[in-house]
Amino acid sequence: MPSEFSFINQIRQRATTGANNLILGIGDDAAIWREHEGRERLISTDLLIEDVHFKLDYTSLACLGHKALAVSLSDIAAMGGRPEFALLSLGLPKSKLADLNWQDFFDGYFSLAQKYGVALIGGDTSASPDKVVIDSVVIGTCASGKAIRRSGAKMGEAIYVTGRLGASAMGLELLQRGERLPTQSPDKKAEAIRAHLQPEPRVKFGENLGTLGLATALMDVSDGLAQDLSHICEESGVDAVLEYDVLPIAPSVRELAGTIDKAFSFAISGGEDYELLFTANPEAEAALKKCASECALEITRIGEIMARQNPQEGPRIFLRRNGRVDLLSITGYDHFRA
Amino acid sequence: MPSEFSFINQIRQRATTGANNLILGIGDDAAIWREHEGRERLISTDLLIEDVHFKLDYTSLACLGHKALAVSLSDIAAMGGRPEFALLSLGLPKSKLADLNWQDFFDGYFSLAQKYGVALIGGDTSASPDKVVIDSVVIGTCASGKAIRRSGAKMGEAIYVTGRLGASAMGLELLQRGERLPTQSPDKKAEAIRAHLQPEPRVKFGENLGTLGLATALMDVSDGLAQDLSHICEESGVDAVLEYDVLPIAPSVRELAGTIDKAFSFAISGGEDYELLFTANPEAEAALKKCASECALEITRIGEIMARQNPQEGPRIFLRRNGRVDLLSITGYDHFRA
Repeated sequence: MPSEFSFINQIRQRATTGANNLILGIGDDAAIWREHEGRERLISTDLLIEDVHFKLDYTSLACLGHKALAVSLSDIAAMGGRPEFALLSLGLPKSKLADLNWQDFFDGYFSLAQKYGVALIGGDTSASPDKVVIDSVVIGTCASGKAIRRSGAKMGEAIYVTGRLGASAMGLELLQRGERLPTQSPDKKAEAIRAHLQPEPRVKFGENLGTLGLATALMDVSDGLAQDLSHICEESGVDAVLEYDVLPIAPSVRELAGTIDKAFSFAISGGEDYELLFTANPEAEAALKKCASECALEITRIGEIMARQNPQEGPRIFLRRNGRVDLLSITGYDHFRA
Repeated sequence: MPSEFSFINQIRQRATTGANNLILGIGDDAAIWREHEGRERLISTDLLIEDVHFKLDYTSLACLGHKALAVSLSDIAAMGGRPEFALLSLGLPKSKLADLNWQDFFDGYFSLAQKYGVALIGGDTSASPDKVVIDSVVIGTCASGKAIRRSGAKMGEAIYVTGRLGASAMGLELLQRGERLPTQSPDKKAEAIRAHLQPEPRVKFGENLGTLGLATALMDVSDGLAQDLSHICEESGVDAVLEYDVLPIAPSVRELAGTIDKAFSFAISGGEDYELLFTANPEAEAALKKCASECALEITRIGEIMARQNPQEGPRIFLRRNGRVDLLSITGYDHFRA
């Protein structure tokens, strides 16, 4: 069985890339085409399938509606663009159409859409044999040449991430252990669960990074920090080293993971944080901090881009810890092998 | 349980429609936004779910790949636009990923994409618990103001349809009876089955209708002629009368349906013909015939648009047969009630 990434690569090789006005096809957070002089269009789509991406016994429909849009908004932010339009395809089993209040789903969806001025302009509805199926499309815009791809990281540049990591994976584990929202237990549990069920995409910061041209490579943390960083390194032809001591592990993860190794593992391999991961010239740090603070976000410098050690092989991610630098084995989410 | 159409209407009422540059949101074959001076963008998405839209025991993956793109190309044709880009989301159960040759799916998909110069620019892949899930997005383009909506039909205009009707529904019934491709039996069976598994979207004719401005309302026949015509009448605020004698029933349906009533029912209520249904000023007929013949298509004038008899109620479709005009009860496909 192919991995998800080798399957995508096969499709990518067959896709036509020389189309009129096409700037970037398969392989980044969103595709890009030239809209008119000075402006480009971005588009991304995300599939969410019941019992793969969510379970109805632990998510509310309002959280699900929020998350369905959030993951695609995050893709547009991960290109440095501004989201504008959305389409939504919904496959609903008859029993769940009859028994559940889908207005709650749209409450969650439209609440987030309105927050960022995104208009739902189309979609499709269908029955589904047994699982709820959602496909979420978001269309964004950016000034020509301002989209930030995964391929722009260069040796010596600093690696940054927004916010804190690992809370979504921690929240998923709590849900799998039977914890639910609202919880009577300490706030940290609710914090982690909310990070998983209702992630906040970094819409404004992503857009500002694009407009200001402050980052050289950018993507969102959806499959796990190490794996997502390896995608940047793959596309940029570089390696990277991460600093163990500064990794911004979410407080809920530090408190609830049990061991520091497990907390670290959630932060580096847990998926669905929807924070932004980016590289920049170290001299841009003051401007980056200002940009982040204007969005009420913190950013952390977590490592550095290095030259590719072995150009014949794939990218390597290293970890500096207690003065030692070790190769990090990259694990993260592969939908086809999970 | 709501019908599919009342569910969509609820979403439509909540969707923001005043977005910048948005020309047409939910409710037609595709949404439209202003791309730049003189040009508009069209986008449509179609969900195809295993055991709702197709069964793997009767479709080849090559036919499925073709059809996944065909249904969305048909939506762009149904706006009078030209398709340009596509995105494809695929949810695959692990066993079916391992056991089936998905290159066949992409052979079918890319063969149709290349025929019409459409570039696959993005998508998503995921595991799926048990059913194959496909969401197919196509993005098209047309000159400003040239998109043909469902809402433009006026009293006294003629109603036309391309090609022949009912073969897809006939083919589905044959498949459900156990017939398969290739078939040793008479050609008409293969013709009907192929109409269902591998429909040919009317891409060029749709684009030409838009460019030439020959049609006043346009959509594709996906849910059944009578139901789709009622959508045009609903959006246009009119009624319609169909002529029984001229209805272009596909030869395979005439031969295989058994009775003339059943053949008529397939032609008028069977879905998924993906022919184009449109209205036009009767004086445009010569130009329409020329336009169709340049695309190697036949068109048939099947009826006429009438003033809405009762403005307080929904649209009515009448049938003229043997000198009598009777109200046609509209049945067609409702995914939520099928």
